[in-house]
Amino acid sequence: MPRPKPLSGFPEFLPAGRIVENRVLDIVTGTFELHGFAPVETRAVEPLDQLARKGEIEKEIYVVRRLHAEAGDADELGLHFDLTVPFARYVLENSGHLAFPFRRYQVQKVWRGERPQEGRYREFTQADIDIVGQGALAAHHDVEIPLVALDVFEKLHRDLGLPTVTLRVNNRRLSEGFYRGLGIEDTSGVLQRVDKYDKVGPDAVAELLTGELGLSAAQAKACVDLAGISSADESFVERVRALGVEHDLLDEGLDQLAGVVRVAQRAVPGRLVADLKIARGLDYYTGTVYETFLDGSEKLGSVASGGRYDSLASDGKVTFPGVGYSFGITRILAPLIGRGKLTASRSVPSAVLVAVDNEESREQAIAVAGALRARGVAVEVAPKADKFGKQIRYAERRGIPFVWFGAGYDDSVKDIRSGEQEPASPDAWTPPIEDLVPAVSSTS
Amino acid sequence: MPRPKPLSGFPEFLPAGRIVENRVLDIVTGTFELHGFAPVETRAVEPLDQLARKGEIEKEIYVVRRLHAEAGDADELGLHFDLTVPFARYVLENSGHLAFPFRRYQVQKVWRGERPQEGRYREFTQADIDIVGQGALAAHHDVEIPLVALDVFEKLHRDLGLPTVTLRVNNRRLSEGFYRGLGIEDTSGVLQRVDKYDKVGPDAVAELLTGELGLSAAQAKACVDLAGISSADESFVERVRALGVEHDLLDEGLDQLAGVVRVAQRAVPGRLVADLKIARGLDYYTGTVYETFLDGSEKLGSVASGGRYDSLASDGKVTFPGVGYSFGITRILAPLIGRGKLTASRSVPSAVLVAVDNEESREQAIAVAGALRARGVAVEVAPKADKFGKQIRYAERRGIPFVWFGAGYDDSVKDIRSGEQEPASPDAWTPPIEDLVPAVSSTS
Repeated sequence: MPRPKPLSGFPEFLPAGRIVENRVLDIVTGTFELHGFAPVETRAVEPLDQLARKGEIEKEIYVVRRLHAEAGDADELGLHFDLTVPFARYVLENSGHLAFPFRRYQVQKVWRGERPQEGRYREFTQADIDIVGQGALAAHHDVEIPLVALDVFEKLHRDLGLPTVTLRVNNRRLSEGFYRGLGIEDTSGVLQRVDKYDKVGPDAVAELLTGELGLSAAQAKACVDLAGISSADESFVERVRALGVEHDLLDEGLDQLAGVVRVAQRAVPGRLVADLKIARGLDYYTGTVYETFLDGSEKLGSVASGGRYDSLASDGKVTFPGVGYSFGITRILAPLIGRGKLTASRSVPSAVLVAVDNEESREQAIAVAGALRARGVAVEVAPKADKFGKQIRYAERRGIPFVWFGAGYDDSVKDIRSGEQEPASPDAWTPPIEDLVPAVSSTS
Repeated sequence: MPRPKPLSGFPEFLPAGRIVENRVLDIVTGTFELHGFAPVETRAVEPLDQLARKGEIEKEIYVVRRLHAEAGDADELGLHFDLTVPFARYVLENSGHLAFPFRRYQVQKVWRGERPQEGRYREFTQADIDIVGQGALAAHHDVEIPLVALDVFEKLHRDLGLPTVTLRVNNRRLSEGFYRGLGIEDTSGVLQRVDKYDKVGPDAVAELLTGELGLSAAQAKACVDLAGISSADESFVERVRALGVEHDLLDEGLDQLAGVVRVAQRAVPGRLVADLKIARGLDYYTGTVYETFLDGSEKLGSVASGGRYDSLASDGKVTFPGVGYSFGITRILAPLIGRGKLTASRSVPSAVLVAVDNEESREQAIAVAGALRARGVAVEVAPKADKFGKQIRYAERRGIPFVWFGAGYDDSVKDIRSGEQEPASPDAWTPPIEDLVPAVSSTS
């Protein structure tokens, strides 16, 4: 067949890019586990009627059907478009076998039939954490989630040179209480318009609030003033108070948000900001909401977000409230890898290529490779007993740093970057720790 | 919504089962990397016409369509049913950026709309390795692939107690040469019938060969005799020679198969057997073929298989021959995990639960947890400042072995299995290595 072309919206990496992605995922899932989140994987499909319940997103669903579907076939299926809907189903299905509060992480592809464009994909990887209670879930978990998120991002910054992030937090109770205190009924209508604050600016939002929702100029101004408040410490509370609005829900929201900011400020100073314009669109959040921006790449939009929902799922008798957070892995990585900003030092795991003198001695080379592998060193045996120059070239093309010569009779190893060569024993030699696995790093 | 029911053919694990699966996948992919295979991940969908080219499997394809597909939408898509078709497309698409011979591994879900039954799934995970050449690929890679496979299975046996395996190998050239040497033209017709040897026995195969293909009784007997030959050493060569058939292709096949057996016999004695009835149905293999059986669970059928193909892909000018092998991860694990034969010692990664005296001191507990995590210990903080008995119960239900008391003022750690408690410093204490991560083991 002729050379196939990529499918728009379905990003794929070359091997070096996948090595980068795997390293990132190792850090992400390793950190989730350090915080006690258990792994879960759900099937890729859900019954279509369950997916379509979230009306807003309906048009983006991919339907899945057998090519030769038969009359007796079960319900229609669709590919999941996030990891929350399948996780809610998983919790209900297995609630008798899970211990609550249940902490789980889940890293999988999701699919959305969106029109592909910069930063939007039809297939992409998300990494989610959620903590779910049975009946109730304590408020301190709203503080815990951003600490886990920042632990992940700090490691990605420290170990791989990814940009730092700013996690922007708000609270739906705060906003809703404030709007109610102003005598506004359609609080979600206000939230939808405030969501456009960053795009259109405060004046345009005020116009939408008066023009579309019929708010008074004073009401609109107060809403826009609230949205303009942000602080990396608890000072936002005073600034909200200064607006003179009173409501029980507002007090509750202020308390919760202040609690998140206070702990985060001590744990990871400067990375978390109370930002009262964060609205998270029409999502089903009911309390704390999180958005996360790569410092210097704010235009990319939020790359990781989440929040508190009073009801992740309900079986009619028991309700399962939760708080969760989702890392847009592809959203973060595809631009960095695609533009060569985040690279691996080699395109293969191999640290060593064992050279082969002639095809008759291949078994000795295999034995040397086996001895090195037994001590955790990734090794390839040269595919052909070529001239040594050609075998070195094989290693160079892949970024393999060491070539092993004289396998089994006069063992020595050569660092092909420096040209240094020294005698070595297959049962003892190990590459320097920094060469053991491909190095992943950022270039500016 | 009411409690959802599982979808038949789409297996999912509880968290402890997923911990087991992850451990297995770590061993599998870690071993692939030690052998220098680079990671690749391809999108879940391929153009439907590319998938449907492999006619045999057409009925099993899942078609994917946007719920609100539009006129201008691109070609129809289907979910991939194996990892070979997408990999072949990936090689063609990226051949200019890959170094050949190209060694890659790929671990992903695949989907087949088969009627669900014992050991058959509609969604399952495969782990594939392939070595692909540009134009040509040396025969010694046919020897290498089963050594990698056996390295994986030996570790799964040694570290997790999975059953040992027997890898059964044959060679299409050997069979085809033998049939041609007998004067048979329809060699693939013979192969298809010999494929039923294990199910129906030698006499029934002979009847099919004479009845359906019109072979003479002598020809049929020779084919069945060949299929009956197997040996863990090179003695099969003499037994084939004793049948008195001659053909160049037969000589070639015998040489290649003897080479595989010779090396494997020295590297992993007793695990690899030349078995001349292995046919691998109608697959596109052209030389060496592999099937793998769990010792004691042969009824499950082959759980991992592969072979040599002269043309994985071709762009019209260049042909890419390869040799590959696919582990049926779900096929191997779903029965073992489902029946409790392969279990994890706990349902969470956490080795330690930090108890909380009262909600005011939660931050001290968080600080202790952070200190432990910084040294790689997975930790949860108790979700509620309950009576200590209740907090210990929280740990017990999840299998967490240690509970930390007096966080920040009188630190001590208790092994809740033995009841032993001792003073401990958050900056120095580490659990015994065997408790650091959940232990995965087999029960008989």
